[in-house]
Amino acid sequence: MSDFKFGALDELSINTIRMLSADGVQKAKSGHPGLPMGAAAMAYVLWTRFLKHNPADPKWPDRDRFVLSAGHGSMLLYSLLHLTGYDLPLEELKRFRQWGSMTPGHPEYGFVPGVETTTGPLGQGFGNGIGMAVAERHLAAVFNRPGHEVVDHFTYAIVSDGDLMEGVASEAASLAGHLKLGKLIYLYDDNHISIEGSTSLAFTEDVGKRFDAYGWHTQHIDGNDLEAAAGAIRAAQAEKERPSLIVARTQIGYGSPNKQGKAEVHGEPLGEEELKATKQALGWPPEPMFYIPKEALQNFRKAVEKGKKRQAEWEAAFKGYAAEYADRAAEWESRMKGDLPGGWEAEVPVFKPEGGAVATRDASGKALNAIAAKIPALVGGSADLAPSTKTFMKDMGAVGPGDYAGRNLHFGVREHAMGSISNGMALHGGLIPYCSTFLIFSDYMKPTVRLASLMHQRVLFIYTHDSIGVGEDGPTHQPIEQLAGLRSIPNMTVIRPADANETAAAWKVALRHRSGPVAFALTRQKLPVLDRSIYPSADNLEKGAYILVDTEGKEPGIILIATGSEVSVTLKAAESLKEQGIATRVVSMPSCELFDRQPEDYRREVLPPAVTKRLAVEAASTMGWHKYVGSEGDVIGLDRFGASAPAEVVMEQLGFTPENIVAHALKLLGR
Amino acid sequence: MSDFKFGALDELSINTIRMLSADGVQKAKSGHPGLPMGAAAMAYVLWTRFLKHNPADPKWPDRDRFVLSAGHGSMLLYSLLHLTGYDLPLEELKRFRQWGSMTPGHPEYGFVPGVETTTGPLGQGFGNGIGMAVAERHLAAVFNRPGHEVVDHFTYAIVSDGDLMEGVASEAASLAGHLKLGKLIYLYDDNHISIEGSTSLAFTEDVGKRFDAYGWHTQHIDGNDLEAAAGAIRAAQAEKERPSLIVARTQIGYGSPNKQGKAEVHGEPLGEEELKATKQALGWPPEPMFYIPKEALQNFRKAVEKGKKRQAEWEAAFKGYAAEYADRAAEWESRMKGDLPGGWEAEVPVFKPEGGAVATRDASGKALNAIAAKIPALVGGSADLAPSTKTFMKDMGAVGPGDYAGRNLHFGVREHAMGSISNGMALHGGLIPYCSTFLIFSDYMKPTVRLASLMHQRVLFIYTHDSIGVGEDGPTHQPIEQLAGLRSIPNMTVIRPADANETAAAWKVALRHRSGPVAFALTRQKLPVLDRSIYPSADNLEKGAYILVDTEGKEPGIILIATGSEVSVTLKAAESLKEQGIATRVVSMPSCELFDRQPEDYRREVLPPAVTKRLAVEAASTMGWHKYVGSEGDVIGLDRFGASAPAEVVMEQLGFTPENIVAHALKLLGR
Repeated sequence: MSDFKFGALDELSINTIRMLSADGVQKAKSGHPGLPMGAAAMAYVLWTRFLKHNPADPKWPDRDRFVLSAGHGSMLLYSLLHLTGYDLPLEELKRFRQWGSMTPGHPEYGFVPGVETTTGPLGQGFGNGIGMAVAERHLAAVFNRPGHEVVDHFTYAIVSDGDLMEGVASEAASLAGHLKLGKLIYLYDDNHISIEGSTSLAFTEDVGKRFDAYGWHTQHIDGNDLEAAAGAIRAAQAEKERPSLIVARTQIGYGSPNKQGKAEVHGEPLGEEELKATKQALGWPPEPMFYIPKEALQNFRKAVEKGKKRQAEWEAAFKGYAAEYADRAAEWESRMKGDLPGGWEAEVPVFKPEGGAVATRDASGKALNAIAAKIPALVGGSADLAPSTKTFMKDMGAVGPGDYAGRNLHFGVREHAMGSISNGMALHGGLIPYCSTFLIFSDYMKPTVRLASLMHQRVLFIYTHDSIGVGEDGPTHQPIEQLAGLRSIPNMTVIRPADANETAAAWKVALRHRSGPVAFALTRQKLPVLDRSIYPSADNLEKGAYILVDTEGKEPGIILIATGSEVSVTLKAAESLKEQGIATRVVSMPSCELFDRQPEDYRREVLPPAVTKRLAVEAASTMGWHKYVGSEGDVIGLDRFGASAPAEVVMEQLGFTPENIVAHALKLLGR
Repeated sequence: MSDFKFGALDELSINTIRMLSADGVQKAKSGHPGLPMGAAAMAYVLWTRFLKHNPADPKWPDRDRFVLSAGHGSMLLYSLLHLTGYDLPLEELKRFRQWGSMTPGHPEYGFVPGVETTTGPLGQGFGNGIGMAVAERHLAAVFNRPGHEVVDHFTYAIVSDGDLMEGVASEAASLAGHLKLGKLIYLYDDNHISIEGSTSLAFTEDVGKRFDAYGWHTQHIDGNDLEAAAGAIRAAQAEKERPSLIVARTQIGYGSPNKQGKAEVHGEPLGEEELKATKQALGWPPEPMFYIPKEALQNFRKAVEKGKKRQAEWEAAFKGYAAEYADRAAEWESRMKGDLPGGWEAEVPVFKPEGGAVATRDASGKALNAIAAKIPALVGGSADLAPSTKTFMKDMGAVGPGDYAGRNLHFGVREHAMGSISNGMALHGGLIPYCSTFLIFSDYMKPTVRLASLMHQRVLFIYTHDSIGVGEDGPTHQPIEQLAGLRSIPNMTVIRPADANETAAAWKVALRHRSGPVAFALTRQKLPVLDRSIYPSADNLEKGAYILVDTEGKEPGIILIATGSEVSVTLKAAESLKEQGIATRVVSMPSCELFDRQPEDYRREVLPPAVTKRLAVEAASTMGWHKYVGSEGDVIGLDRFGASAPAEVVMEQLGFTPENIVAHALKLLGR
């Protein structure tokens, strides 16, 4: 690839990245210098010769996406962002890993302009990038018109051996190969070193061959050979049908005379002596720290002009597109802002009691399908359970190899990748991704739910088969602790609707909620549709908890709190208690988190402190319920695993009957 | 492979499996007939021509292990167990998926003799089998002597496309190839069907090539060709260096005229009409249900005599071994019973305050190393974090390719496989496996922790870096909700020790605990070693919670409850409160679960109901703490994510200081 020329200025620039990174880690006395030093050369080639970006506008929609999946090498990314002219002052690099700085230990989305996703937990960036590439291809298929390629960018990542060992990356890679994501280009920093020592201790597979088997285009290069790196990236760009993995042999801690190629340079500062020796070896002045040669800075900062120009060209092209396809352009802009089209809420179905019992998974499927046409940003699917989770959008087609206009995704039996890819789709913008599986398998994708919460991403997690009501499949498939687990994630919203109309209300709440993920917990089994001419509106769900049955002016003797499938059983128990002359309030509490966010007045209205006899009923772990029932309350829950039998038998055997609720209530009341 | 002859009796026997399975699912009106019908032929070949087992003694230590990783095909396994003469009456097959039956929806360890592990959550059986194969090779290396191969068995599994799509299986497969586990033989039921339809919707990778890349020996056969199956299993047995994957093309729902090869036969009964048509197509009498031809039963039951003979031969050989190597034989027997050698507890170190502050991860590492020589059953490792989690046993060698005598395992960056493999090692017997990573990455292996709990397996999960005390690595690496998540798993025991001596006590408790897993939550940062001449013995940890500082006869005005790193901070707060004349009790509560298992009297002694002013302090989610602090109590915890900065800064900023504890306490007391 002789048209790429590299020389002394390039070497100087690459060493600038290396030394900024090493200095940052040394000053913080904490961090990972090895990766930035080893991968600096290929990252430099990518960022200066290929990456389409505008440092002045990190949100330019058609920028290439760059993911540092090996997030521990954060100083590499921070160095590149500062050097190429992003709004990341050198002062912040000097405050690496300090309280309140823009340079946290691992790259965090939202903290630093130019960081496309939060990475660090290995394998996640790998999956996120695939989600971004899916989003790009889908949006291109939906919005581009002949002669108007308004959506047309690459997704790049630097990935490490740790990423490639993680199962989530294997799952995502298999799907990316299947989907023929030709615009995905990953550089594998193959440095042969992991924390415990040589990768030969545990990782001796033939990575290239594995990716060939997934249907990827693979190349092998010396990661310090700039022309080879440029040639490989160009070949990867030219490959339209297959995602690309460039296996780049690098040296961890490159330039360090005594630590290069060794495990100790992975996650510890070089130390003052070795830092000095490294600077000497690379012909770098020992002082000052964070030294940036003027020529190197000028070289990097060419990105500013270049980026401005490229974005301006794109904007001009977009204007032409908008002139010809005004509707499309308007929808594009609205979707990139994350806005919802007007009138969608009118499509959400209302369920009538006379229509018979409805499983909340079915109600959810109906709601999704009712709004699907109005909200084209909704794109999603299931980990091979769509017929059970009711998440297929009819007549909306599917994303398939080389054909990306459909809106349904077949993720395969790959829950973890599903979550990671969905996060990437949300991060890309233009889409509201949803994904689904059985609630029990939320365990398989927990790290991704957490990251969606941490990054405030609008991802909908539709979990069905939400309790022992699963029935015959037994304890391996019956969630117990999963609700507590999800509820304990900061910035998470879990909704477990009591009937079909609460499910419809949950969809409204979920789509309006922009600052984080929402998880649905839905039943497999049918539930009565509550008669809303008797009970208050299901739209009260937005407050998290509301009074379903009250005591006609009397102070409640007891409050029964229930969620999901246990609400209708609890209503029966309340009738029986009422017949016994006990003033019984029933509270439906589909979402603890939504309730906790209400004003104190409302919370005290629903659960008055004076009423201390409270009984919570949920077919799940009791953990978390004592907060609402208090010292004198009780919880009917499950601090054991479930059992295999028909759902109604399991529910009865494990105490979710009106009779058992009444018995507990009477005991609480000392009767 | 002409020495294997198959004929009409074999076909009859195979159809017996198919029809028992279809009948079982039909009678239960629930289940998965497709896999048993499709995989019956190869399962039959394996079970009748190869599998070394004794139906009369399912615990014979040197039996081959068989794992049905695709656990939804449970009727295949139940049919084989009944037919070959295990203690599983036909009546139980008729009660498939009913309350209290021996035939739950998915195979459950401990419920059915001959079920080696609980499967259903896909990929788990795949990993468990690799753990069993590791255990076998390690025990062979440790116990076998020239001419005495007392440990020498294969590990087989039937795995599905769902298993192979799951990341946990990819991780485990890569490690199995690395370790050259030649005695592992997996049959891949390649039926081209998943729940959403053809596997071509999402799974088009070249599976054989992928496994080649992992270093496996791969073969492709027609799964209904009995001679081919036999030949492939024999070739796999002959291959000593590589694990084997036999890719067997099968037809899901084989024999069903209208449903064979279709997705609908995966997870639903055939239906009465189709069941009749299938029986007709296979030349089977329509009645009775659960019909077993006498010749077929006789054919299968040959396993009883054969098994008895093989076990008797092994026992005779073992006697010869015991005569020559009495110590070895005694240790073997003791280890297979799960007993601990006498005197090990004396080795557990005692830490002195004058030795300076110690991180509990370091104390754990010292305890582990101190007892390692006494307890050779302890085998384990880390997901590439041993230098940080302090879990390497010095001078004990490592399990490596072809060399299995070492006791340290390098799992690579593969947390999920680590958990699944550890479960398999425990299930095999003879080992007490431990595994370790940062607490945050317990999320990556959650499904395996749950299964260890469900199966009552003695697996030690050593989680370090247990809070925001991680410091600079930031929120992606700082656990918040992980403690609540682990504590909410039924039958789980989580221990978060307050200092080095509680850590030592935790090791004692964990090793004595035989009925389920134990998770340690250990600090990265140093903690003061409490002076046990002042405070009660750290061995009180076994009670889950104990009074560390009391009020000298006075009724406590307030109880401060703390765990782990927050205990020493809370002690300082208590001093300050005492100086202000407030009778303050401090409770160290390293394990909620151990405390909950204490008699009520003890629990009321530690937390007297009359003392309602209670403050819990834990640098983690507040979820679960209201149970202990009650309606008038408060919790200092974290219902937000952490932040990147030095540990002491993060701790201070987020409120884990004596001053903030005192302020909260005074507020509670209305001062």
